[in-house]
Amino acid sequence: MFLTRSEYDRGVNTFSPEGRLFQVEYAIEAIKLGSTAVGIQTSHGVVLAVEKRVTSPLLVSSSIEKIMEIDSHLGCAMSGLTADSRTMIDHARIEAQNHRFTYNEKIKVESVTQAVCDLALRFGESAHGEESIMSRPFGVALLIAGIDEKGPQLYHADPSGTFMQYDAKAIGSGSEGAQTELNEEYHKSLSLQEAETLSLKVLKQVMEEKLNNTNVQLAAVTAEHGFRIYSEEELQVVIDRL
Amino acid sequence: MFLTRSEYDRGVNTFSPEGRLFQVEYAIEAIKLGSTAVGIQTSHGVVLAVEKRVTSPLLVSSSIEKIMEIDSHLGCAMSGLTADSRTMIDHARIEAQNHRFTYNEKIKVESVTQAVCDLALRFGESAHGEESIMSRPFGVALLIAGIDEKGPQLYHADPSGTFMQYDAKAIGSGSEGAQTELNEEYHKSLSLQEAETLSLKVLKQVMEEKLNNTNVQLAAVTAEHGFRIYSEEELQVVIDRL
Amino acid sequence: MFLTRSEYDRGVNTFSPEGRLFQVEYAIEAIKLGSTAVGIQTSHGVVLAVEKRVTSPLLVSSSIEKIMEIDSHLGCAMSGLTADSRTMIDHARIEAQNHRFTYNEKIKVESVTQAVCDLALRFGESAHGEESIMSRPFGVALLIAGIDEKGPQLYHADPSGTFMQYDAKAIGSGSEGAQTELNEEYHKSLSLQEAETLSLKVLKQVMEEKLNNTNVQLAAVTAEHGFRIYSEEELQVVIDRL
Amino acid sequence: MFLTRSEYDRGVNTFSPEGRLFQVEYAIEAIKLGSTAVGIQTSHGVVLAVEKRVTSPLLVSSSIEKIMEIDSHLGCAMSGLTADSRTMIDHARIEAQNHRFTYNEKIKVESVTQAVCDLALRFGESAHGEESIMSRPFGVALLIAGIDEKGPQLYHADPSGTFMQYDAKAIGSGSEGAQTELNEEYHKSLSLQEAETLSLKVLKQVMEEKLNNTNVQLAAVTAEHGFRIYSEEELQVVIDRL
Amino acid sequence: MFLTRSEYDRGVNTFSPEGRLFQVEYAIEAIKLGSTAVGIQTSHGVVLAVEKRVTSPLLVSSSIEKIMEIDSHLGCAMSGLTADSRTMIDHARIEAQNHRFTYNEKIKVESVTQAVCDLALRFGESAHGEESIMSRPFGVALLIAGIDEKGPQLYHADPSGTFMQYDAKAIGSGSEGAQTELNEEYHKSLSLQEAETLSLKVLKQVMEEKLNNTNVQLAAVTAEHGFRIYSEEELQVVIDRL
Amino acid sequence: MFLTRSEYDRGVNTFSPEGRLFQVEYAIEAIKLGSTAVGIQTSHGVVLAVEKRVTSPLLVSSSIEKIMEIDSHLGCAMSGLTADSRTMIDHARIEAQNHRFTYNEKIKVESVTQAVCDLALRFGESAHGEESIMSRPFGVALLIAGIDEKGPQLYHADPSGTFMQYDAKAIGSGSEGAQTELNEEYHKSLSLQEAETLSLKVLKQVMEEKLNNTNVQLAAVTAEHGFRIYSEEELQVVIDRL
Amino acid sequence: MFLTRSEYDRGVNTFSPEGRLFQVEYAIEAIKLGSTAVGIQTSHGVVLAVEKRVTSPLLVSSSIEKIMEIDSHLGCAMSGLTADSRTMIDHARIEAQNHRFTYNEKIKVESVTQAVCDLALRFGESAHGEESIMSRPFGVALLIAGIDEKGPQLYHADPSGTFMQYDAKAIGSGSEGAQTELNEEYHKSLSLQEAETLSLKVLKQVMEEKLNNTNVQLAAVTAEHGFRIYSEEELQVVIDRL
Repeated sequence: MFLTRSEYDRGVNTFSPEGRLFQVEYAIEAIKLGSTAVGIQTSHGVVLAVEKRVTSPLLVSSSIEKIMEIDSHLGCAMSGLTADSRTMIDHARIEAQNHRFTYNEKIKVESVTQAVCDLALRFGESAHGEESIMSRPFGVALLIAGIDEKGPQLYHADPSGTFMQYDAKAIGSGSEGAQTELNEEYHKSLSLQEAETLSLKVLKQVMEEKLNNTNVQLAAVTAEHGFRIYSEEELQVVIDRL
Repeated sequence: MFLTRSEYDRGVNTFSPEGRLFQVEYAIEAIKLGSTAVGIQTSHGVVLAVEKRVTSPLLVSSSIEKIMEIDSHLGCAMSGLTADSRTMIDHARIEAQNHRFTYNEKIKVESVTQAVCDLALRFGESAHGEESIMSRPFGVALLIAGIDEKGPQLYHADPSGTFMQYDAKAIGSGSEGAQTELNEEYHKSLSLQEAETLSLKVLKQVMEEKLNNTNVQLAAVTAEHGFRIYSEEELQVVIDRL
Repeated sequence: MFLTRSEYDRGVNTFSPEGRLFQVEYAIEAIKLGSTAVGIQTSHGVVLAVEKRVTSPLLVSSSIEKIMEIDSHLGCAMSGLTADSRTMIDHARIEAQNHRFTYNEKIKVESVTQAVCDLALRFGESAHGEESIMSRPFGVALLIAGIDEKGPQLYHADPSGTFMQYDAKAIGSGSEGAQTELNEEYHKSLSLQEAETLSLKVLKQVMEEKLNNTNVQLAAVTAEHGFRIYSEEELQVVIDRL
Repeated sequence: MFLTRSEYDRGVNTFSPEGRLFQVEYAIEAIKLGSTAVGIQTSHGVVLAVEKRVTSPLLVSSSIEKIMEIDSHLGCAMSGLTADSRTMIDHARIEAQNHRFTYNEKIKVESVTQAVCDLALRFGESAHGEESIMSRPFGVALLIAGIDEKGPQLYHADPSGTFMQYDAKAIGSGSEGAQTELNEEYHKSLSLQEAETLSLKVLKQVMEEKLNNTNVQLAAVTAEHGFRIYSEEELQVVIDRL
Repeated sequence: MFLTRSEYDRGVNTFSPEGRLFQVEYAIEAIKLGSTAVGIQTSHGVVLAVEKRVTSPLLVSSSIEKIMEIDSHLGCAMSGLTADSRTMIDHARIEAQNHRFTYNEKIKVESVTQAVCDLALRFGESAHGEESIMSRPFGVALLIAGIDEKGPQLYHADPSGTFMQYDAKAIGSGSEGAQTELNEEYHKSLSLQEAETLSLKVLKQVMEEKLNNTNVQLAAVTAEHGFRIYSEEELQVVIDRL
Repeated sequence: MFLTRSEYDRGVNTFSPEGRLFQVEYAIEAIKLGSTAVGIQTSHGVVLAVEKRVTSPLLVSSSIEKIMEIDSHLGCAMSGLTADSRTMIDHARIEAQNHRFTYNEKIKVESVTQAVCDLALRFGESAHGEESIMSRPFGVALLIAGIDEKGPQLYHADPSGTFMQYDAKAIGSGSEGAQTELNEEYHKSLSLQEAETLSLKVLKQVMEEKLNNTNVQLAAVTAEHGFRIYSEEELQVVIDRL
Repeated sequence: MFLTRSEYDRGVNTFSPEGRLFQVEYAIEAIKLGSTAVGIQTSHGVVLAVEKRVTSPLLVSSSIEKIMEIDSHLGCAMSGLTADSRTMIDHARIEAQNHRFTYNEKIKVESVTQAVCDLALRFGESAHGEESIMSRPFGVALLIAGIDEKGPQLYHADPSGTFMQYDAKAIGSGSEGAQTELNEEYHKSLSLQEAETLSLKVLKQVMEEKLNNTNVQLAAVTAEHGFRIYSEEELQVVIDRL
């Protein structure tokens, strides 16, 4: 009596008889094609690490930005469609700046995550306001790391507009293996240095290429230094610890 | 002479020959995939309890919000698509605040429920006003609990925009078993404490995981304290009573 | 040479080769799934009675509103999609209030019926004005009862935007049997009390549940008291007369 | 090489290979499902007569309006979808009133007919102005009767927006038989009284029910009295003449 | 590899692989279903003649307008969909009046033809301006006759928005035979009277009914009298010359 | 795995798996159905020549405009859909006039060509500005000839919005043979008179009819006289030279 | 259970079950049909070289612009749909000028690249602002070369809105072979002159025609001269070096 699954999955925003939204589920699949990213929260700060796929020897590795600053106390790692992530992160940056301007305080990590998810939910709407809205779900997942009065926090946001807080989370093509590793190795008393090492260790196991200081990117957000992306030299120090 | 059922079910807002709106019925199915939520009304207040699905050991349980405050005298529990519920609850909060501002009084429980249902009915319309409108039915059901001059009240609102008042109501994947239990156990003279215990007892029977103070959420609205979500400690007290 | 009937019936507003509008006909089918409602006009006033489907023992019966006031001299009973009826009745109330404000007199029963039917006809139009317009036909039929200078009147309005005046009319799932009964029992000299009794007698015969003062609703509009919905006590008095 | 006819007939406004607009032709079919209406022009005035289908013994016959006044010198009879005709006739009334206001004279019969036909042609356009425009052809035909400086005139307007002047014309389900009768019986020297009788005689032959003063409606427009719908008593006088 | 022709022909404005626009070609077919019209240019003026299809003996022949005045020096004959032609000719009249008002001179015959063709080309566009635009090609062809400083001229405009000047041109269902006749009989030194006779002679041969002064219409535009439609008496004089 | 070519070719603006835009390619086909046009650039000026298809002996040849002036120093020849070319050339004229008005100098040949191509690219967009935009690709190609500070220039613009400068170029149904001829005969030192003769010689070979001064059109743009379309007498002189 | 790949690839912006956007992938295919372009970055500047397809001996080679200036310190080479590239490059020029005007400094190479990619991502949106937005992905890839405070840089931007920095990059139909060559020959210490020679050597190997100073185009951006396209004479000097 029902159509096969495939008949319901092309309408951008249509429920299947079982109550599923297939286009959103497919956008989540797009992330499984993306490079792996890992986030680990410790009591001293949050570490973000991503794989960079250097598809050509002449590609300038530093031009691949998979980790980006949102505000001085906030950053994120992405997996999925690079171009889509720019729209989401620009939105996050504007929300953060507006908050600072309006309330003279830093935006909370959860608030900026919710703002990004609200944008994700609004695909398919007509854009009558100033900001552009996508006609399809965003094909990107974000790991948002930040520090506010609640301390260091790590959030995961996906194309359905759902967000959750995690102690440690992996996304992208190697996420399954990486998450298993994280579940085993993570404990609440990890130091930031241990988290740096763990994040690269996890990436190393799921990457096809040998990990070096040009094909991964590392960042941390701490109370002392806020959000910082590691230089190639700093990154090499962590790699040497592995 | 008629097409099979499946041919009518993809138009967002099209009647089948029997007069049914399948996309709305499918959105109701989405709720059957969601976590279970329970509401119980007593003469002293209304209790809301929900299951939280902690899908990963590293997921921070407290970041899953299935029960939310609308106003100081109003709260709700949701089941279905988390992101959709944010839009509905934001709408409810704005309605409640506007009412306070305009009439200098608290909004009635029925009024806020009707406002949410009017929004639910308006999917598929063009959004020319300020508020965003979904291009599909909302995939979420709400149990709205509150107190006004009529005393404590519990309302159920579904994706079709229909709402009803209940003494006790269960929604979500375990709703069938939970509602049977409620029908048997509920009586008009339940104390608030008894309602707390009953709500968790009902959840316990339909949850796959063992119930503890991180995978359920409990809240109550009473004349004395208004709407309050229980802390993990307060929750543990109720669990211990089970 | 022609397509089968089913090929023409999904366009919201498309004629079939025989000149039929199937989506409107299907919306009329939605009413046949609804609860039964009955209206009876007498020289002293009009009686409205509806079945309330109490699907759960914990459902608060009084929260099911199938009969609603439009103005002090006007009310209506509905069958079909509850949420749709709210839009239509809000429209009717606004029309009635505007008429009072502009002309300092009560709106005529026929005028308010026509206003509701004009709204019904406008589905599928773009909404550039303030009021929301449905993208499909309304799945609801109304029995509108009122009193004006022409005396007590009962109108029936359906999803096609057609309206007719009746001495007595039944709508909803039991309408066929109910109308047969009305045709036999109705006479012009019915007193209002006799109309009350007849309306419940008719409902009793088509309801699956045993009729009581919580699963039916009764209302009357008279010159003396205007539109009034009966309390459970008043309702019990009529039931006792049966 | 061509598709079969049926493949071209669902686009609201698409030509078939033979240059036909099927949706408009199907709207014309809708009229063949409607009740029969007859118009007869004499040198003293124009007579309009319609069948009223009283589908229930409790239906108040006088609430079926198949003949309506447009202005004091103008009226019309309709066949097809009742709700559609209201939109067209409201448009005609506004045009007539605007003409009076702007030029201080009565609108010509042809002008008001053309205004109605222009509206009929505009279906499927976006409505950016104030007046609502249908998204499908109007499913209604009108016989417009009036008197102006050219004397009494009878016009026929159909869903394609085409209009023609007739000495006598029948529309609706019985139009074929009725028109044959009119062609035989009509002559230029008919008195108004003879036209009254002829119109009812023609209706009588195509109606399934026995003609009486509640299931037909009669109207005339004359220089002396302008447009007038006959009372049941006046109608009975004509029936008695039959 | 290509689809059959029929697969390309329903998009309102889509090219087939051979570069054809089928909907426009089908609109041209609509004209072949229309009544025949003939135009003949002489050095003294232009003659237009059309067949009127009197489908019923009670149809008032004079209400069929197939020839219409545009301005005092301009008129046109049409074939195809009558209602469509009104829109085109209203557009032509407005263009002519605007030209007079703005430049204080009569519009040129070619200019008014081009204005009509520009409107024809614009179907399918959204109407944001004041004038209504059709959602399909116009199903009408025009023979536009006029006099300006270049002398008497006859233009033919078709649904594709193409226009050409002719010495003599036939359109409509009998156009093939009529054009052959015109090609044989036409010469540059025809007098206006000879053109009148020729136009009716040509119509006579392609009409199914016997030509008389009610089933054809004749008009001429000359320097002396501008555009004039012949009365039935004047028409009879020409018929008698045949 | 891929669909056949034909499945991709009806979306107005959709890429096929090989990266092709079929609707644009089909619009280019429309030009191959058009009359042949030829342009030849010399150091003294540019010559344009076109075939005029005189489909009826009574068609006034001079009303077929296949060569049009854009500005005093600019003209163009077209092949394809006549009505489409009017929109493009009107656009070119407005651009040329605006340039003169704004900068007090003649627009460059390349600039006007680019403006026309930008319009061509914009089909399928919504028109929110003042100028009408087509809902399909333009079915017309242009040879644009002009003189500016860079000397005489000939540009070819096609429906894809691509333009190129040529020494000599043929378009339309006979373009293949004509271009071969041009490739052989063209040399940089051609005089304008030789170019005139060559253009007609080329047309003569691809035309079905015998070339004469009514079925071809000739124009030239030179520094001395700007853009000029030849009179029938001047044209006869060139024909006599052949 | 899934549809075949081909069923998902026609929606402009729809995910396939594997999370792919086929229309964007097909637009990338369009570039593989385009002419080859090569970019090489050295420490002294960036060299761009493109193949020009001279499809006719009478085509004026210099009118084929495959390399264009964006600002005095910025230029780009394109491959794919010529007309699409104009829109993108106009957008880049405006962004560069706005930056100069607002900040009184030259725009960064990465900033202008990002601006172009943001435009690329926005296809399919409604254009409510001033700038036109495509209804399909852009069928063009760009090599953007510039100098700013970070020194000479080469960016590659593709239809998905993704951009990367490269030491040397080839695009277009010969890109595979060309990139292999570049990977082998490129080293960080290349002089600008060596880069000129290498770029032409690479093109020579993938071009079907023999390379000469009319069928390739060469440009460089250096600190001394900014962005400059080579004259045919300068180009010949480089060819002679090969």
